[in-house]
Amino acid sequence: MNDTKFMKRAIVLARKAEGFTSPNPMVGAVLVKNNKIIAEGYHEKAGLPHAEAIAIMKAGDKAGGSTLYVNLEPCCHRDKRTPPCTDAIISSGIKKVVVSMRDPNPKVSGKGILKLKRNGIETEVGILENESAKLNRFYTKYMKTGRPYVILKTAMTLDGKIATPEGESKWITSERSRRYVHKLRGHVDAVLSAIGTVKADNPLFTSRIKGTNDPTRVIIDPELVVPEGYNILNCPPRTVMVTKKRNRRARELSNRGIVIINYSGRLDLNELMEKLGAMEITSLLIEGGASLASHAFEDGVVDRIMYFIAPKIIGGRKSYPAVGGDKHRRIEDAIKVKDISIRRFGEDILIEGELR
Amino acid sequence: MNDTKFMKRAIVLARKAEGFTSPNPMVGAVLVKNNKIIAEGYHEKAGLPHAEAIAIMKAGDKAGGSTLYVNLEPCCHRDKRTPPCTDAIISSGIKKVVVSMRDPNPKVSGKGILKLKRNGIETEVGILENESAKLNRFYTKYMKTGRPYVILKTAMTLDGKIATPEGESKWITSERSRRYVHKLRGHVDAVLSAIGTVKADNPLFTSRIKGTNDPTRVIIDPELVVPEGYNILNCPPRTVMVTKKRNRRARELSNRGIVIINYSGRLDLNELMEKLGAMEITSLLIEGGASLASHAFEDGVVDRIMYFIAPKIIGGRKSYPAVGGDKHRRIEDAIKVKDISIRRFGEDILIEGELR
Repeated sequence: MNDTKFMKRAIVLARKAEGFTSPNPMVGAVLVKNNKIIAEGYHEKAGLPHAEAIAIMKAGDKAGGSTLYVNLEPCCHRDKRTPPCTDAIISSGIKKVVVSMRDPNPKVSGKGILKLKRNGIETEVGILENESAKLNRFYTKYMKTGRPYVILKTAMTLDGKIATPEGESKWITSERSRRYVHKLRGHVDAVLSAIGTVKADNPLFTSRIKGTNDPTRVIIDPELVVPEGYNILNCPPRTVMVTKKRNRRARELSNRGIVIINYSGRLDLNELMEKLGAMEITSLLIEGGASLASHAFEDGVVDRIMYFIAPKIIGGRKSYPAVGGDKHRRIEDAIKVKDISIRRFGEDILIEGELR
Repeated sequence: MNDTKFMKRAIVLARKAEGFTSPNPMVGAVLVKNNKIIAEGYHEKAGLPHAEAIAIMKAGDKAGGSTLYVNLEPCCHRDKRTPPCTDAIISSGIKKVVVSMRDPNPKVSGKGILKLKRNGIETEVGILENESAKLNRFYTKYMKTGRPYVILKTAMTLDGKIATPEGESKWITSERSRRYVHKLRGHVDAVLSAIGTVKADNPLFTSRIKGTNDPTRVIIDPELVVPEGYNILNCPPRTVMVTKKRNRRARELSNRGIVIINYSGRLDLNELMEKLGAMEITSLLIEGGASLASHAFEDGVVDRIMYFIAPKIIGGRKSYPAVGGDKHRRIEDAIKVKDISIRRFGEDILIEGELR
């Protein structure tokens, strides 16, 4: 019972830095002695001290004989900017370490725990493992694959439309839903969209919530037709143009600090994810139209969907559907969405779930 | 507090006859003396005694001095097959009548209560009025307008598709959702569909749940092309064909007991509802495709929508959308769905709400 309580607290602490730790995970640490919390810490930002180190430092001499609760396996490697947490734990005199989940990085997973054990520290693994896995789903995907965790976000009517045939989509969902999307943008490393959406709405794709980070804007624009003066060409935040063109305009944009990613033929979103991963983009929010959604599903890059549904009906065969494209799946081959959860945002309904 | 408790019980009793009382309302009655229920009753079926009469009969001499809880205003008219309940209440010696809602029939509303008052019986109106209004939404709509209460039911994927471009729709939703639809069919007087759906799926449109009534099947078939041997031509249950044709086939079908409703030009669903109302159809479930849904919204006949959403994605610009049609609405003119409620049927999500 108490293990769960203290681990919950560690997770709450970890989440305080949501949107700030990338490419690092969110980690919270709680030091407990005689069933009481004696010190706490969380990892605030890449480059700053780790959660365990902060809690140990705060506890000082009192750390001796205490139990450490931490949602992720303490690190034991020296290839980071901060010293390994296992050393700090060992020298502090902590007698037991309760870990929620192992480090998903296959190269280090289990090694931190092993080092603690070898130094006579009792360890326990697995308390609230599901919650911790959800908390660090971006980090886990990135560590295992080198690619960002991809969320496809859609704002649609109850009859599954994202825009009228004329392209009108402002605003299908309520202000509360849209504010939540701004918050989401603050939690991911990048937003992915396509030139159609950019031309229709001239979006900023920024978070607009005070104190949050703006995501990198990644825009698919095969012919590089984005008009001058459009919001996405206004940096910062960083903009990445994904284009077939290697012309003078591409070079000009590049000179202005806009990142150019070139491709030829049909754009392979798996390759794009590989490249974005190499840029330390660990999470990506897709905010595009019917075609980009279809493209993302066809290439199998989507990890999670978030469908904001407004209780409205607009109808029309020619209105834009949530997912378009030339291809479709048979019912029995439909993409299955698992672990569904439902929330209300005022009148709107958010349905979200995982694809793997 | 106790008023609410006893009225809740009356509503529970009333609902026991869901799907059996049409064109009458569902009514439950509870007789209370010294804070204890001494007798109960509910209206089982049109033609059988009313709830109040049953409870009074069961109580016998004990009814004197008791309080009657009834979800609908007792009737005071003689144009039904059963004697007026107000007379039975007055002669029983009941001292107080608590009514949840007035009779929505504008010709009798308030008259039953007035008659009780004039005979020295204390009356109270309005306890759990919302619940009672919901319980008898079919009856209320029918009494006020002479037309059926119309529910549009749709089974779709999360991306708003009801079928692949090839017309495949079996089965988008789960068995649990489909069983609930069968239950719904047992609660309504009629199902409305169109020849496209009939030809694609050869549906029975029956309830398939033991002990329930099957709805009348109303099929829009402009050219009367329904193939011989199809399930809907197998009566009972009753079938109504809505067609432009007044030919030999129409006469043949009519001779076999199938009701023919003729129209010319574009079918006006308001006129059709008028005609179905005249046939004592008080409630109607629309189970059609993208075009019929669009038609129903355009003609403004829909009272309630029920969208069963399977957590699946099939995509495709050419897949059939939940609502099709040549027309669409602008975002600001979208049809608004109010009083939304959400339920889960296994993996599926049911979103339902009112249009007025």
